[in-house]
Amino acid sequence: MSETRKSVVIIGGGFGGLYAAKGLGNKPVDVVLVDRKNHHTFQPLLYQVATAVLSPGDIASPIRGILRRFKNIEVLLDEVVGFDLDRREVHLRDGAGLTYDYLVVAAGATHSYFGHAQWEADAPGLKSLEDAIELRRRILLAFENAERRAAEGRDPGPLNFVVVGAGPTGVELAGALIEIARGVLPHDFRRIDPTQAHVILLEGGPRILPAYPDDLSRSALEQLQSLGVDVRTSAAVTSVEPGQVRVGDMVIPSTVTLWAAGVAASPLGKMLSNSTDRAGRVPVGPDLGLPGHPEVFVIGDLAAAKGEDGKLLPGLAETAQQQGKATAANIVREIHGEPRKPFHYRDMGLLATIGRQAAVARFGRLHLTGFTAWISWLFIHLMLLIGFRNRVLVLVNWAWAYFAYQRGARLITDVEPITRTHEAEAPTERRKAG
Amino acid sequence: MSETRKSVVIIGGGFGGLYAAKGLGNKPVDVVLVDRKNHHTFQPLLYQVATAVLSPGDIASPIRGILRRFKNIEVLLDEVVGFDLDRREVHLRDGAGLTYDYLVVAAGATHSYFGHAQWEADAPGLKSLEDAIELRRRILLAFENAERRAAEGRDPGPLNFVVVGAGPTGVELAGALIEIARGVLPHDFRRIDPTQAHVILLEGGPRILPAYPDDLSRSALEQLQSLGVDVRTSAAVTSVEPGQVRVGDMVIPSTVTLWAAGVAASPLGKMLSNSTDRAGRVPVGPDLGLPGHPEVFVIGDLAAAKGEDGKLLPGLAETAQQQGKATAANIVREIHGEPRKPFHYRDMGLLATIGRQAAVARFGRLHLTGFTAWISWLFIHLMLLIGFRNRVLVLVNWAWAYFAYQRGARLITDVEPITRTHEAEAPTERRKAG
Repeated sequence: MSETRKSVVIIGGGFGGLYAAKGLGNKPVDVVLVDRKNHHTFQPLLYQVATAVLSPGDIASPIRGILRRFKNIEVLLDEVVGFDLDRREVHLRDGAGLTYDYLVVAAGATHSYFGHAQWEADAPGLKSLEDAIELRRRILLAFENAERRAAEGRDPGPLNFVVVGAGPTGVELAGALIEIARGVLPHDFRRIDPTQAHVILLEGGPRILPAYPDDLSRSALEQLQSLGVDVRTSAAVTSVEPGQVRVGDMVIPSTVTLWAAGVAASPLGKMLSNSTDRAGRVPVGPDLGLPGHPEVFVIGDLAAAKGEDGKLLPGLAETAQQQGKATAANIVREIHGEPRKPFHYRDMGLLATIGRQAAVARFGRLHLTGFTAWISWLFIHLMLLIGFRNRVLVLVNWAWAYFAYQRGARLITDVEPITRTHEAEAPTERRKAG
Repeated sequence: MSETRKSVVIIGGGFGGLYAAKGLGNKPVDVVLVDRKNHHTFQPLLYQVATAVLSPGDIASPIRGILRRFKNIEVLLDEVVGFDLDRREVHLRDGAGLTYDYLVVAAGATHSYFGHAQWEADAPGLKSLEDAIELRRRILLAFENAERRAAEGRDPGPLNFVVVGAGPTGVELAGALIEIARGVLPHDFRRIDPTQAHVILLEGGPRILPAYPDDLSRSALEQLQSLGVDVRTSAAVTSVEPGQVRVGDMVIPSTVTLWAAGVAASPLGKMLSNSTDRAGRVPVGPDLGLPGHPEVFVIGDLAAAKGEDGKLLPGLAETAQQQGKATAANIVREIHGEPRKPFHYRDMGLLATIGRQAAVARFGRLHLTGFTAWISWLFIHLMLLIGFRNRVLVLVNWAWAYFAYQRGARLITDVEPITRTHEAEAPTERRKAG
């Protein structure tokens, strides 16, 4: 019997890969899940790590721990560098390889700089815990540096936070930043006034949250503006430089620039298909199979999967989870000699949070804004978190942030304790403390 | 009135500096606290971050947040590089300076490599959150790398964790490591057997926990051995190299080496005094004042302060806290025209934890071991943590670790996702998954 067991290789421990693995857990297959990281990251809450509400450990779980009870699943910390689809092989980083009967590629996506990769250093994105820790460091250091300059008798300069891209991540970042500046930090600084910080949200298109219904976009805009965010639409960034961002002829001084625009699928997509779309996503069949290679499935943000209406499915955690489950079910069906079923996407709605009691949500035809949308957002995200421990930790931190108006995870950790970028040479002077 | 307000500069946001600042909070003085980090770190629990029980954010609090309610205290993220004691000036990193009427230096200590600074790369110590994150990365990667080698059909090699130094930190690290290997990880790996990992604790002196009473040293040794730790006393390390440690002629292969030996006071000590002791500590008077400069106080691990018995006070959080409070009180007394009081150290005992229900403790003449010592340790450390939020988070994580036999904070975060140190070139081969 064990000779005839099929082997499945899953690439990626995000929502797609993890749900595919769970669906194959304790089924008559041998599964290897490969990821470059040892942990699953709950990406929808990364912006809360970047803005010091949550700790990295609160929204991440070791993949081995999540899958420990499935003895037919092996986890490998390694990086996939290529495929030989005809020989059914996955090439790993050091030249070793894995063969498979079924391959599930769920390698995800990162941000796109639209051909300007050099912008990344001055405008990092937010796709991993490392990204979030780096953004947190830059945001907190901006205030610290201004305070130090003021203490040294110098001009603290402006505090401008520029968020590029007004999808859900950009909206959530902008809302969280204004909340830190106006609600959390004012009591902590003595020489600068954090409430004077500017948060500027730039969107290339005509409206924010372009994937949302019109009325929710408008509501989100109003909620952001009432919090004090400077929202600019039809403002496509033409250049990112140290200390500033350009939109056409306009120069916007920027202390910290955060990138939340564009989607670029994992480079593994191009190794699987010659017909990837502009974002590098792989076109798949109704069963999420790779055309010409029914034994290969592509799911999650890497797949250009279409719904029954012919439109591209949204790049959400929910989509990846459903696709992972469906793919596992199809593999099990085929092993049992049953036919595959086409993937059917169940629209669970859209949700973006903006601030304290501020959010927008669509569930089916129901549109929510403000407090009710916010409460739904809190509840749904707590439930979606993987693991009881993470839920409790996130709840404690949210309660603390809400009631104490503090941010507990305000840590600047780095090899270099103090980074002084874009600063003129400091004058040598003496002053009296206090 | 404000013309006559005295200014106090405090260097360091550890236990000493923080308690000095709190003691001066809302008193008629102007205080500036300078630290290179923006957060206070609860050092006694750093080893639990290194061993993935706790997250960095659980044991750290932003210094500004701790002191936010004291409007006479300013916090500055900066680095002190020197002093001009005659002009009463502190020199900061970029050339700017602070003048003071009183100076409290609480810059702490780090590990000493006994003149072999080059050992640090292969045997990092544990003094900061960054250190703890790096140790955690090395420990977790050791298991991951062995599993990957096994999956590639290669010899996974031995899994040896060598801890150098059997003071409280070394004992706690060794106990936590064996617990991970034997209690936590066995269900997570498919190809290696984590219970086969060796934890070797090396102590140069004749007994572990040399600062503890004899019977508690013996008990700690027995408790460690019953957990499976290989404890070797009178084993002074003569060389640390990539992949191995030497003790005289003996070569001990080491997958991960952790340094928990020796104390080296902050280099600021030598800038304050020509008569520092071997560990670089500054001799101080009965009021913790710097001889010849009564307006300068040196406290915490940087001070070589003596008790009434003429013995050096232990380098504990407790000592630093008491000294910080006493120094603040003396400054306030002097401002009010009252004489200073000499510092009196109140011995609160010694505590070291070893594992589940395993610890040793001395309170006055009472010696505790095993479960009672362990429960005391838990309770006291929870109470000592700064901030309600941290207490709740640590409690949740401890409960999780205890009842679920898991380590929630098992994150490997780094710029390089996979580090392959000390590995031979990998053979190119193909294998069947599963």
